[in-house]
Amino acid sequence: MVAELTFPVRYVETDAMGIVHHTNYVVWFEVGRVEAMRQAGLDYAAVERGGLFFAVAEVHVRYLSPARFGDRVTVRTGITELRSRAVRFDYVVVDAESGCVRVEGYTRHVPIDRAGRVTRIPRELLEALRPAVAAQN
Amino acid sequence: MVAELTFPVRYVETDAMGIVHHTNYVVWFEVGRVEAMRQAGLDYAAVERGGLFFAVAEVHVRYLSPARFGDRVTVRTGITELRSRAVRFDYVVVDAESGCVRVEGYTRHVPIDRAGRVTRIPRELLEALRPAVAAQN
Amino acid sequence: MVAELTFPVRYVETDAMGIVHHTNYVVWFEVGRVEAMRQAGLDYAAVERGGLFFAVAEVHVRYLSPARFGDRVTVRTGITELRSRAVRFDYVVVDAESGCVRVEGYTRHVPIDRAGRVTRIPRELLEALRPAVAAQN
Amino acid sequence: MVAELTFPVRYVETDAMGIVHHTNYVVWFEVGRVEAMRQAGLDYAAVERGGLFFAVAEVHVRYLSPARFGDRVTVRTGITELRSRAVRFDYVVVDAESGCVRVEGYTRHVPIDRAGRVTRIPRELLEALRPAVAAQN
Repeated sequence: MVAELTFPVRYVETDAMGIVHHTNYVVWFEVGRVEAMRQAGLDYAAVERGGLFFAVAEVHVRYLSPARFGDRVTVRTGITELRSRAVRFDYVVVDAESGCVRVEGYTRHVPIDRAGRVTRIPRELLEALRPAVAAQN
Repeated sequence: MVAELTFPVRYVETDAMGIVHHTNYVVWFEVGRVEAMRQAGLDYAAVERGGLFFAVAEVHVRYLSPARFGDRVTVRTGITELRSRAVRFDYVVVDAESGCVRVEGYTRHVPIDRAGRVTRIPRELLEALRPAVAAQN
Repeated sequence: MVAELTFPVRYVETDAMGIVHHTNYVVWFEVGRVEAMRQAGLDYAAVERGGLFFAVAEVHVRYLSPARFGDRVTVRTGITELRSRAVRFDYVVVDAESGCVRVEGYTRHVPIDRAGRVTRIPRELLEALRPAVAAQN
Repeated sequence: MVAELTFPVRYVETDAMGIVHHTNYVVWFEVGRVEAMRQAGLDYAAVERGGLFFAVAEVHVRYLSPARFGDRVTVRTGITELRSRAVRFDYVVVDAESGCVRVEGYTRHVPIDRAGRVTRIPRELLEALRPAVAAQN
């Protein structure tokens, strides 16, 4: 399953080149990740309140074409790896109208506890996320 | 006393108008505030670790001329009100070369504890901050 | 008329106090402003492509209670002053569930052209924005 | 040659986990990149005013340990590939006191003109950047 979320570009996200600054796609990945968990029935805010955090271990982005203020973008997010000690999400950001791909990328995460120690994702949470695993993103 | 801090504009701080996005001056106020406390001998990170937080209660900014990428800016920060339950900082951001004023503004703060309840600034901390009170900003 | 827009808090918008960092409400004001214009039939991205920019001249925010990750917030935006050389927007940000007020504030804007010179808002644009003027925000 | 730049973490850069939000390291890469060019005698703001832009084509970050508010961080930046149509920068962010590595990563860039078309980096600019090429980052 791939979760989709569409929203407009914010003006603050642009830079002096007149396009969306490259860091914002990484923010949108995060927004897509939370949405993918939500669509799987998982409230990530509640997960954190319960003491489990998906610390970011790696980020990769390839930039193909620029989004601009005035555009609406769609973030497609799928889980592409799901183990008790590692999760990977893959993302594609496309223009909501034309479907033109803006960026693609992935993030890897390690579950940690409140003290910052690596921990295991509990079984029931792994089961909840299982349907969000994308056959192919 | 007025604390001064000079730093270059970051590219990410620009927007599609080719100038610094207006929200970043509020970030720079915060940077100036931490520096004003530091120059008064107070490590704000340590203050927070001790359980005291200067929650932002009000922000005001007047924008006079725009900063751009390539500029260096100077933030001048003074404490203009200092009571056990309220602190006000005033700021002027100027171009570091020309001295041209970019923005001026102030922030008001309320001391809170870890639970978010309004508390009092301890006497020794008030005393430490006293020299940072600006006769006139 | 007051335009409403509801969206979830982004994780990146939080800070080490565990709440939304105070600068993000100013970002949300901008998002609300663009939405208020859109509901009045004005595409602000097109306005800028046409060479007119609503430069920010003043920002004021009062913080009443903190939003957190996991919350959905509603931004209510109204135009409270509309002249050919000055526009003021007023905002209230509330929790989308409880209606609890998080912040209130306003921004003042001056119309400028591509070269950064103060200009006049064309009559047809003023007419388009007229219905967005709030009787009372 | 590897360019170094040291600065304090900004409060706004923290998130609800109490650490620096992962997107800010990508901002710091940009700050380091501009500094690396500056140390090579190149004013990137002037380069852009001249109509040449180093568009970001790829970003990669590995997160090893978290920075926090109160820390000072050092960004070490080197050019690791320099061709007329492609530039790669490599980065290491370390704690300025302990030297503990926070993140490492790279960015790839493509030179574009004002219209967004891929162009060539002029020979004199390539020559200027040559000394910034790191033997090993």
